[in-house]
Amino acid sequence: MTEHSKSSALRNTDGVSESEITNVNSISNIKKKRKLKPTTDALISQILEGNITALSRAITLVESSNVKHLQQANTIIQGCLKQANKSVRIGITGVPGVGKSTFIEAFGMHLTSVGKKVAVLAVDPSSSLSKGSILGDKTRMEDLVKNEKAFIRPSPSGTSLGGVARKTRETIILCEAAGFDTIIIETVGVGQSETAVHSMVDFFLLLKLAGAGDELQGIKRGIIEMADAIAINKADGENLKAAKLAKVEFNRALHLYPQKASEWQPKVSLCSALKQEGISDIWELISTYIKHTKANGYFEKNRKEQSKFWLLQTIEERLKSDFFNQPEIKEELQKQLQLIDEGKTTPFVAAEYLLQL
Amino acid sequence: MTEHSKSSALRNTDGVSESEITNVNSISNIKKKRKLKPTTDALISQILEGNITALSRAITLVESSNVKHLQQANTIIQGCLKQANKSVRIGITGVPGVGKSTFIEAFGMHLTSVGKKVAVLAVDPSSSLSKGSILGDKTRMEDLVKNEKAFIRPSPSGTSLGGVARKTRETIILCEAAGFDTIIIETVGVGQSETAVHSMVDFFLLLKLAGAGDELQGIKRGIIEMADAIAINKADGENLKAAKLAKVEFNRALHLYPQKASEWQPKVSLCSALKQEGISDIWELISTYIKHTKANGYFEKNRKEQSKFWLLQTIEERLKSDFFNQPEIKEELQKQLQLIDEGKTTPFVAAEYLLQL
Repeated sequence: MTEHSKSSALRNTDGVSESEITNVNSISNIKKKRKLKPTTDALISQILEGNITALSRAITLVESSNVKHLQQANTIIQGCLKQANKSVRIGITGVPGVGKSTFIEAFGMHLTSVGKKVAVLAVDPSSSLSKGSILGDKTRMEDLVKNEKAFIRPSPSGTSLGGVARKTRETIILCEAAGFDTIIIETVGVGQSETAVHSMVDFFLLLKLAGAGDELQGIKRGIIEMADAIAINKADGENLKAAKLAKVEFNRALHLYPQKASEWQPKVSLCSALKQEGISDIWELISTYIKHTKANGYFEKNRKEQSKFWLLQTIEERLKSDFFNQPEIKEELQKQLQLIDEGKTTPFVAAEYLLQL
Repeated sequence: MTEHSKSSALRNTDGVSESEITNVNSISNIKKKRKLKPTTDALISQILEGNITALSRAITLVESSNVKHLQQANTIIQGCLKQANKSVRIGITGVPGVGKSTFIEAFGMHLTSVGKKVAVLAVDPSSSLSKGSILGDKTRMEDLVKNEKAFIRPSPSGTSLGGVARKTRETIILCEAAGFDTIIIETVGVGQSETAVHSMVDFFLLLKLAGAGDELQGIKRGIIEMADAIAINKADGENLKAAKLAKVEFNRALHLYPQKASEWQPKVSLCSALKQEGISDIWELISTYIKHTKANGYFEKNRKEQSKFWLLQTIEERLKSDFFNQPEIKEELQKQLQLIDEGKTTPFVAAEYLLQL
């Protein structure tokens, strides 16, 4: 409710007709006010005009668990599709402490200074649990928050990575339709969220610190393999020497991997987000990558493959949740697990039984 | 047909009653012969008596794609369950060229020499394509094939790893019921098959060569992380020095991983399967591991978790195949993929549409 009233209030200031405003003023009870929520069509055209309030509102619908909201969200997305897909999507990951927020602030400010419109989103499936998660505290990006050319939206909350990923992926489309040409998607350097983000971006940037000793971790979990570039942050002052050494080592590690389908050799860069050094180099590197992959057709091909991946992924997740959430299955599953524990059935016979129900 | 006649012929020599033999002799046409296939109950009791022909026959039922055969197979497995689970299951992996067949031959011969009954199975999802796959050519294990205490069965063929894994996992139960107390499951060092094998064994052995330079590959793909021991094969002659060095390196790599749930510190061993050196050490190491994990409860706990994993895995695979194999879905999926390609829908809207059908 509060959210809605706030939106309505704000709405009056951007792009709503006079007669609508008059209507709002003449209404005294909440029920009637509700009816005045902009129609789906109005929301679509407001988003396409770059109206941030309408964008926020549509994202709220995408994030809702209410079926009606979701239907409305789908219609809005459908209406935004023609204007979508015209952006560069950049995934940024790194373990806590690597300086992600500071980097994104510096990077985002640089992008807007060269005329870009930047949306910063996040994928953090833990956000509903830990509350204070990445991007949750916008104050860590003081300048970017105040920047008119930037839009920051914290991670949607959700019980599953799949749910959070879906919401973020749809939010990308809405942001693009609203005119944001550079989408940054932040994720934490833990769990499977990197893989999810990797499969929704054009360029994947891994933030590292010199001498953090987590190289093996990155190799093991396949994150280094996904990176199109590694930026070694905090490469300043006494840390600079170690950062230069780390650059050599990461370059060597990157060369151990077979060539990527993009035919792009991942690069290692040094930067200091705090001192705003090396930030423009990273944007140049990304621009080179985009030019390279647009020229060889990989950019377009990759986006299509990502869409197909998400189509199949979404269906699989839904099939599973529809099946396992049936009360009868829940109950019988427990019984079958018990029988397996007691050695009275096999997983395959039990599976067959549950599927027959 | 040939398979069946052969089985019938063999069956007469092991454990079939006089009257049955008389019956067989008096029959002249194939139709009547078919009726004489041992009943499901007879097969169960023959397997429990250690009858190899009955075991092979039951495995053929498990591997069949005929629904009636599968139902019969399920009944047999159910009947065998009480006698199953009394074995040590060992997974062995390694890239082609590492000497897997030679190792398994030497290892299997050692095991039978200390009184074990050894079944050697394989998980190789590529077997239906490449034909000449691992264990396909039994002649590579000349001595073990002739060994009465050993039973070798090539990888079942199948279109999916899931299918091959299911068949192998049920075959393990049949082999155990037939009295095999040591089950070796071989897999090739490529693809996802290691993960599948790892989740059906008690102990996972990784075969390596010194200086093969595929350490990163092993770390990357999580195989080193799964290993309970690494055996560096061909550690003989001029190769011995390099093998000793590799042992130090692998030991160091293994220590970089956090402690396993089994509380077992993975070991590195040297061996020469060709010269039959170091083979008994590896069996001792496995025995120590089994004692250790039986004492701390991990052995039992792990088996139960594996069963639960396979239950969920089987259901998920079936839900997917049941959905995607519907002719209408197949057709509509192609249309939706086309719409995604043209930017006319989103993966999530398309998924929703397909799920509603």
